[in-house]
Amino acid sequence: MPDTINSLTEDIAFIAYIDGLKNVVRVNRLFDGSRQENTAEHSWHAALSALILAPYANEPVDVDKVIRMLLIHDLIEIEAGDTFAYDQPDVLARQEQLEIDAAQVVFGKMRSPLREELRALWDEFEARVTPESKFAKAIDRFMPIYSNIHNGGEIWLKHGVSVGQVRQNIAIVREGSTQLADQAEEMVAKAAREGVLVT
Amino acid sequence: MPDTINSLTEDIAFIAYIDGLKNVVRVNRLFDGSRQENTAEHSWHAALSALILAPYANEPVDVDKVIRMLLIHDLIEIEAGDTFAYDQPDVLARQEQLEIDAAQVVFGKMRSPLREELRALWDEFEARVTPESKFAKAIDRFMPIYSNIHNGGEIWLKHGVSVGQVRQNIAIVREGSTQLADQAEEMVAKAAREGVLVT
Repeated sequence: MPDTINSLTEDIAFIAYIDGLKNVVRVNRLFDGSRQENTAEHSWHAALSALILAPYANEPVDVDKVIRMLLIHDLIEIEAGDTFAYDQPDVLARQEQLEIDAAQVVFGKMRSPLREELRALWDEFEARVTPESKFAKAIDRFMPIYSNIHNGGEIWLKHGVSVGQVRQNIAIVREGSTQLADQAEEMVAKAAREGVLVT
Repeated sequence: MPDTINSLTEDIAFIAYIDGLKNVVRVNRLFDGSRQENTAEHSWHAALSALILAPYANEPVDVDKVIRMLLIHDLIEIEAGDTFAYDQPDVLARQEQLEIDAAQVVFGKMRSPLREELRALWDEFEARVTPESKFAKAIDRFMPIYSNIHNGGEIWLKHGVSVGQVRQNIAIVREGSTQLADQAEEMVAKAAREGVLVT
């Protein structure tokens, strides 16, 4: 147990700081299409969805580790802002560097040993090698595909997103869950037939 | 592993349903005071704060269980709406019955065995007997005290909330974390001196 009041003061300062994630507005809209989603509520939805969808993971996963990963996976957006998965490659590459710099700032505000623990968890998520990170990434990529299907794909149409582009994301879903990827493929094929995606 | 496509269809229907928690608007405002908070982003903030504040729990806790509890603790608000902790006792009593009815509806939409698992977790949270539920409730009650302190207490002033009323919530924080309760007491005493709370 931390034995000084100073530790608690520092820890709750970090809690006030991460409230900023509620002000990071994503390109994607809610399932009912009523407004853009923010990254804090997306993180909640992804973490709880991991618990619900754990039986469909390709490999056995420590679901609590997946949940922790999804709770912190976008903290860096407090500094770096949101990335739209269908941005141009040069924009995405620049964003990746921004996020690495942001990780130094964000995790640097935490006290040890949580700083190292959560930074390692974020690095693991980004590397997508372990069963937990593959599954966490699958959930993270599935959510906006599903919400866009649900709300009529306004954002896909607005940005001229193609079936091919969405399938690149489904390939990442597939690394973590074949069943979830098959489900996404089926949804996307239907959306393409209905003209919601550029074919 | 669920062996039918039907299970996955049902599970992702539930994921679309709980998106509704992002539309439940709380009385409390963000830490920067810019807008009212919604219950989905509050749930994210509380779950991650539990991880950060776990060292201050009065008793050893299974922090992953606390996180799961906080991820689902307010799902019933999709049906019952938000409760303001400083409402009149008759309003709070009516809300409590609404929430019990809502739990039947919300958890009833899940498949077994997750339905029973998460319902049991919610019942445990509400009963506030186990170390995990006491600590989860402490976090849940601490968050709005802290955000109100942080944003200048606009909501407390608007609703004429008194130091005595906030202290009733601090007593619940104390059941889970004496250190966090002491911190809250200190903040509240300062806010009272500054005229943010009715003394």
